[in-house]
Amino acid sequence: MTTKTPPATASSPLSKAPSRPVVALLSTHLDMDFMRGPLQKKLPEAEIRKWPDEDVSDADFAVCWRPPHGVMAGMPRLRLLHSIAAGVDNILADPELPDLPVCRVVDENHARGMAEYVLWSVLYFHRRFDSVLRRQAEGVWAPPRQRAAGEVTVGIMGWGNLGRSVGGALRAFGYNVRGWARTPREVPDIEFFAGVSEREAFLRGTDILICLLPLTDETNGILNAGLFASLPEGAALVNIGRGEQLNEADLLAALDAGHLRGAVLDVFAQEPLPPESPLWAHPRVVVTPHIASTADPRTIADQISTNIRRILAGEALVNEVDRRRGY
Amino acid sequence: MTTKTPPATASSPLSKAPSRPVVALLSTHLDMDFMRGPLQKKLPEAEIRKWPDEDVSDADFAVCWRPPHGVMAGMPRLRLLHSIAAGVDNILADPELPDLPVCRVVDENHARGMAEYVLWSVLYFHRRFDSVLRRQAEGVWAPPRQRAAGEVTVGIMGWGNLGRSVGGALRAFGYNVRGWARTPREVPDIEFFAGVSEREAFLRGTDILICLLPLTDETNGILNAGLFASLPEGAALVNIGRGEQLNEADLLAALDAGHLRGAVLDVFAQEPLPPESPLWAHPRVVVTPHIASTADPRTIADQISTNIRRILAGEALVNEVDRRRGY
Repeated sequence: MTTKTPPATASSPLSKAPSRPVVALLSTHLDMDFMRGPLQKKLPEAEIRKWPDEDVSDADFAVCWRPPHGVMAGMPRLRLLHSIAAGVDNILADPELPDLPVCRVVDENHARGMAEYVLWSVLYFHRRFDSVLRRQAEGVWAPPRQRAAGEVTVGIMGWGNLGRSVGGALRAFGYNVRGWARTPREVPDIEFFAGVSEREAFLRGTDILICLLPLTDETNGILNAGLFASLPEGAALVNIGRGEQLNEADLLAALDAGHLRGAVLDVFAQEPLPPESPLWAHPRVVVTPHIASTADPRTIADQISTNIRRILAGEALVNEVDRRRGY
Repeated sequence: MTTKTPPATASSPLSKAPSRPVVALLSTHLDMDFMRGPLQKKLPEAEIRKWPDEDVSDADFAVCWRPPHGVMAGMPRLRLLHSIAAGVDNILADPELPDLPVCRVVDENHARGMAEYVLWSVLYFHRRFDSVLRRQAEGVWAPPRQRAAGEVTVGIMGWGNLGRSVGGALRAFGYNVRGWARTPREVPDIEFFAGVSEREAFLRGTDILICLLPLTDETNGILNAGLFASLPEGAALVNIGRGEQLNEADLLAALDAGHLRGAVLDVFAQEPLPPESPLWAHPRVVVTPHIASTADPRTIADQISTNIRRILAGEALVNEVDRRRGY
């Protein structure tokens, strides 16, 4: 137990804390050491400890990416659970999660990184780089027929901060863009579809489908045979939502049947993607190792430290998620 | 010889022509049949003939893509040589070229298609898709370090209509953009370098080099060992100028030495690229079959027919090139 009193500095709201606050870094999938420096810089008075190397049982704040299940239930002083990413499904998945506020990171650069990844993927299919690279491997010169961006409709599932940013970038490049989300939105130049009742219509006119949905009970496994069948023949998939949303067997079947043109996948139910996965070697699948998001550790540290200071000062949290809704 | 008088239509300037104009389609590399329909629609009174299947010796206008050398010298009625593309080097290469005006096609969609191709290539290197795809082939999950677009400098050689369009698209995506051309330009937000004296400085700070130069005596072979040595280690090349500008052996040497990161090539001295070329199988080279440009046949026909009408009406031509300069 840490009982030392922090040095009293007039300028820092942290000095109001009863004791030196302890921040726990929790992940079963990622070495969280990269967050240590940026967090310490923003929270000089805090003590930062990494699970499982260090004792985190008396931590006040948890900074998480796929945290170990059940561990937070044994941390009685916890006041806030903070994701280092835009998604919190990796935290909410813990069946013994304490009933505490959960926050996520919302980063403009993160949105820009996603837009870059999506634009690369959309151009990959639109300009037929997929077929061109396969022909290169065979040593065959075969110029494919080219279409203007305005002849291609990109459908975005999920319309939060990231969906908006990606949609804007695609519109600026001349693509037809349509969006789908749980609830209706008014977006200039974007045809919007909402809810289960309009999903079919949304999919029927989509040439390239981008999944940017948060992972919830409703979106788990949403990218399945039924959804693929609603897409027109020759459609392509880009998944930058969550791996659990994709039924990999259904995707492979739709690709092998020639119904889908190809897929660019950045997220997987199991990460790293296991060596035995058939996705690695499939000629119509691009596997990228969760690179779409490029949130800067300094930005992550900035937002986490802001929320820690706010909770200590009794102020409202920034980017707190609705735990029941899941995002 | 065609001596029939065209039907007199008050609205058409073609009715001023003394006889039914003959348009010759000339190419040793491309089946020009795709231009027949669009041209006939724009020039209903014209007779369109394709070399070598049909006699073109009495043609008034030549529509060319890599036309056969010496053939135009035997066409005494010729008044205009028109490229179907942005470049005219394929026409000026004819050593027996008649001394007639040469025009090219300038198409906004063409520029947009180039910008798409370049953005895909720049993202390919910037976001490390090159390394990610190589690791996928090995079944290895290895997230590369990511940089923000603002940390990457793209250098564009050649600053005509296409260079401007490409530079604007890259700036909009947050890249640092610098330009190089024969003569200085003032371009907002773009660092500009001009002439041989500033070439070295331009190259030294370029992470991704885009060649969009016209093919002239000065640019023939410009992408050679000396130029590559001036680029920083780890730089990448995108060639969408002309194949003759690239010394392929020098490129392969720079790639194999690890000095250059990779190359995306759309143009080749010999097209189609011969099956025995080592470029096809090189792990750091993307070979695309001259797909960057996507000028619409209707737009090409529109600009060619406009120039034919203008020459018949004695008006100034649109997009005429300076034959001595070569663009």
